[in-house]
Amino acid sequence: MQEIEIRELKRVKLKKPVMIEGLPGVGNVGKLVAEHIVHELNAEKIIEIYSWHFPPQVLVNNDGTVRLSKNEFYAWKSEKQDLLILSGDQQSVTNEGHYLLAEELLDIAQQYEVSRIYTLGGYGIGQLVERQKVLGAANEAGLVEEMKRYGVEFREEEPGGSIVGASGLLLGLGKLRGIPAVCLLGLTSGYLVDPKSAQAVLEILCRALDLKMDMQALKDRAEEMEKVVERLKEMEQAQIPRRREEELEYIR
Amino acid sequence: MQEIEIRELKRVKLKKPVMIEGLPGVGNVGKLVAEHIVHELNAEKIIEIYSWHFPPQVLVNNDGTVRLSKNEFYAWKSEKQDLLILSGDQQSVTNEGHYLLAEELLDIAQQYEVSRIYTLGGYGIGQLVERQKVLGAANEAGLVEEMKRYGVEFREEEPGGSIVGASGLLLGLGKLRGIPAVCLLGLTSGYLVDPKSAQAVLEILCRALDLKMDMQALKDRAEEMEKVVERLKEMEQAQIPRRREEELEYIR
Amino acid sequence: MQEIEIRELKRVKLKKPVMIEGLPGVGNVGKLVAEHIVHELNAEKIIEIYSWHFPPQVLVNNDGTVRLSKNEFYAWKSEKQDLLILSGDQQSVTNEGHYLLAEELLDIAQQYEVSRIYTLGGYGIGQLVERQKVLGAANEAGLVEEMKRYGVEFREEEPGGSIVGASGLLLGLGKLRGIPAVCLLGLTSGYLVDPKSAQAVLEILCRALDLKMDMQALKDRAEEMEKVVERLKEMEQAQIPRRREEELEYIR
Amino acid sequence: MQEIEIRELKRVKLKKPVMIEGLPGVGNVGKLVAEHIVHELNAEKIIEIYSWHFPPQVLVNNDGTVRLSKNEFYAWKSEKQDLLILSGDQQSVTNEGHYLLAEELLDIAQQYEVSRIYTLGGYGIGQLVERQKVLGAANEAGLVEEMKRYGVEFREEEPGGSIVGASGLLLGLGKLRGIPAVCLLGLTSGYLVDPKSAQAVLEILCRALDLKMDMQALKDRAEEMEKVVERLKEMEQAQIPRRREEELEYIR
Repeated sequence: MQEIEIRELKRVKLKKPVMIEGLPGVGNVGKLVAEHIVHELNAEKIIEIYSWHFPPQVLVNNDGTVRLSKNEFYAWKSEKQDLLILSGDQQSVTNEGHYLLAEELLDIAQQYEVSRIYTLGGYGIGQLVERQKVLGAANEAGLVEEMKRYGVEFREEEPGGSIVGASGLLLGLGKLRGIPAVCLLGLTSGYLVDPKSAQAVLEILCRALDLKMDMQALKDRAEEMEKVVERLKEMEQAQIPRRREEELEYIR
Repeated sequence: MQEIEIRELKRVKLKKPVMIEGLPGVGNVGKLVAEHIVHELNAEKIIEIYSWHFPPQVLVNNDGTVRLSKNEFYAWKSEKQDLLILSGDQQSVTNEGHYLLAEELLDIAQQYEVSRIYTLGGYGIGQLVERQKVLGAANEAGLVEEMKRYGVEFREEEPGGSIVGASGLLLGLGKLRGIPAVCLLGLTSGYLVDPKSAQAVLEILCRALDLKMDMQALKDRAEEMEKVVERLKEMEQAQIPRRREEELEYIR
Repeated sequence: MQEIEIRELKRVKLKKPVMIEGLPGVGNVGKLVAEHIVHELNAEKIIEIYSWHFPPQVLVNNDGTVRLSKNEFYAWKSEKQDLLILSGDQQSVTNEGHYLLAEELLDIAQQYEVSRIYTLGGYGIGQLVERQKVLGAANEAGLVEEMKRYGVEFREEEPGGSIVGASGLLLGLGKLRGIPAVCLLGLTSGYLVDPKSAQAVLEILCRALDLKMDMQALKDRAEEMEKVVERLKEMEQAQIPRRREEELEYIR
Repeated sequence: MQEIEIRELKRVKLKKPVMIEGLPGVGNVGKLVAEHIVHELNAEKIIEIYSWHFPPQVLVNNDGTVRLSKNEFYAWKSEKQDLLILSGDQQSVTNEGHYLLAEELLDIAQQYEVSRIYTLGGYGIGQLVERQKVLGAANEAGLVEEMKRYGVEFREEEPGGSIVGASGLLLGLGKLRGIPAVCLLGLTSGYLVDPKSAQAVLEILCRALDLKMDMQALKDRAEEMEKVVERLKEMEQAQIPRRREEELEYIR
């Protein structure tokens, strides 16, 4: 195995696809969206990526078999718009690995002549989200204007600071290569897996891509989480403040 | 010394040996089993492995001499089944080292044409274990079924998440090379060296390998630990809750 | 992108320029000074530096666009003294990256035949600064004497210990190359961005370079911070000691 | 500058010298001894070693000039026994750097045909030392016996575990090269620079090398520290338990 090992499972032809990145991160928002899209569109896995920069562990599947941590590309072809979807188990755990992996992902993006990249993630605000919103950032001023039309918010103060990991680097390094890229960040508490935030991000994305998609699976998971949140609120009111944080972490 | 230095002490011929990995980890379960087997079978050390990825320290032997941290392979020949046993002082302390070392271990495994790998470890549950069990994971669905027959439990929820270090990577990276591999994890508190859990793992392993082995040494150590646990329980009941955690850590 | 990528935007001719380094650090003192100089002199950006050793993230601008973390060189030409000014978003986050980046910065310094380097930073004292001072260190004994004439303090006990990051390494590695270099450290609490400390450093630097510069922008920011500090003092007197530390960190 | 840069200041001829290593560590015991020997014997600096694996900082001298973190070899010639003394500002801060630096140090040791290595350090016991002792470890069983004759203690339980850093690796890696090496560890609290422990180590070393040396400088520093310890004890009795730990750390 090399430092970064690209395993091409199948070579497909795509017409200037749009690339969608949804790797694990805050609230797992990006990953939830990417996996939902792959599932709903029945997209085809075409590439697996292994790396020393992922955590040194295997993940155990429900049937007792294991898999190495990896990232995966899926392809989807349609009349209107081809898609190249990136998801996976992990992001790099080393500083340099983040850069090296992002460069490899962009190599693949260029090989498939992607016309644009959407990176998806969550923006943790440290408390339960009252009103669902999607914040944005882009690597071209023109994209900022376009995204506003789809309901993405751009605030002078937020996301502010920085966008960490693949969702950020694909924009920054993509700019150096001249690939237009947008980051969509769903507001989320940061404590829990957040399918509701994922739904908000997916709605914007579908609008931008002029795509229709069944959202029921995300809605169902959002409702489940809603119940968890309700229980947590009750527990909080029942004054067990000490335990609250731990339980949230347990569920995350 | 190279990044990973393989020192072959003796070249032996083995007939499609089964490889058994027992490196340090949770409850030191895997290491206890591997060392017990080496001792009981009087297996012969054939390879030493040094690496920059082990902690930068020497270990002091009882006679005042020191040794560099290392991993070791032992060989055992028999009519029925040859064994290649891996144990050692340490695992990698760097992320990349875990992958590089696992790849080297698999190179050696392939050189000896191992027919299967058993990786051994502990599965920490954060409390004293009431009923001893051995959980499993495998890199082939067929192996899952086979292991169930020997009493290994496969749960949808557990081990869940991940198996960290050599015990996990030998399965994941082994799969990419087509080497069948099983991981056996003895339930353990995670606080203490656990010879009782090691005994449970060894019993399964002996059944799988159709091997007979004296377990007295492990039983003796388990009884010693039992006394330590009893003392800890008494102390807990004597209400010194604050100190409990520290003492457990001290003994570990 | 390479491990360290130098992007030369424009090639200029400078006459034995003085180099001024002001990268992020304690109280952001060095960065404030360097950015103030660039702005006031309308210096021209000539080089951008990207690296795997910067944090794996992009920074979001006020207009919603993003930029990769980078360091930048600016050039300024004048009758009396040309300047080569270094500022940026980040310093290395890896140990080796600090050395590699400092060596690259010195390569550029030598390419432009810099006659001397001033590195700028803050010296955190852990409490609000009563009397503003600038401490110094140099890589030649003669420079120590010269700097004393401009009001820089050299104390046997302070800065004592060490100067971490580019501000220190440019002196230490510069000495091995025979480049005279001075470090100016403004006293600062270490809790807050400190434009007042930056002003003190800039005054010394202007004296040393026989340069005149409008300080109003720094004074304005210093006054804003003064108000923040006043609020913090009031809160402290109102006895909310527990929260004080967090709030300071929030503002930093 | 290379990953590890060896700067030979002067080439000397030594007759099978004994090498003495005293780099920073627990209680700074080893460094105190090595520096005392260099000073008392007026040994000559012959080699400087710089490395990316040292912390990325410069140290400020009392006169306001700075120096890069480095290790240094000193040579001393005499009728009876030549010495090669290693001291320095720092040890590696990376895992791999520890191994790489130790290998370079052993290359130099072999180039000078050292007959034996003494590595010096402290063994922290977490409380004030009642009776000063020196524990030992060696990379040959014969050396253990020899050292016992000079008053070094070898305990089955202690130092136990491990000897971290250069003091340990020079023994472990030295063994692979066939260089006899002994580690002498003075008992120390682990909280304070400990010249008294250094004195105990030096006395053993002088006995082993049949060397006479004035110890007054170490005695003076030990007395100073004794006063600090007395003050700390008084403070402890005056019941300021909360602050004790911080103050100890401050002084360290």
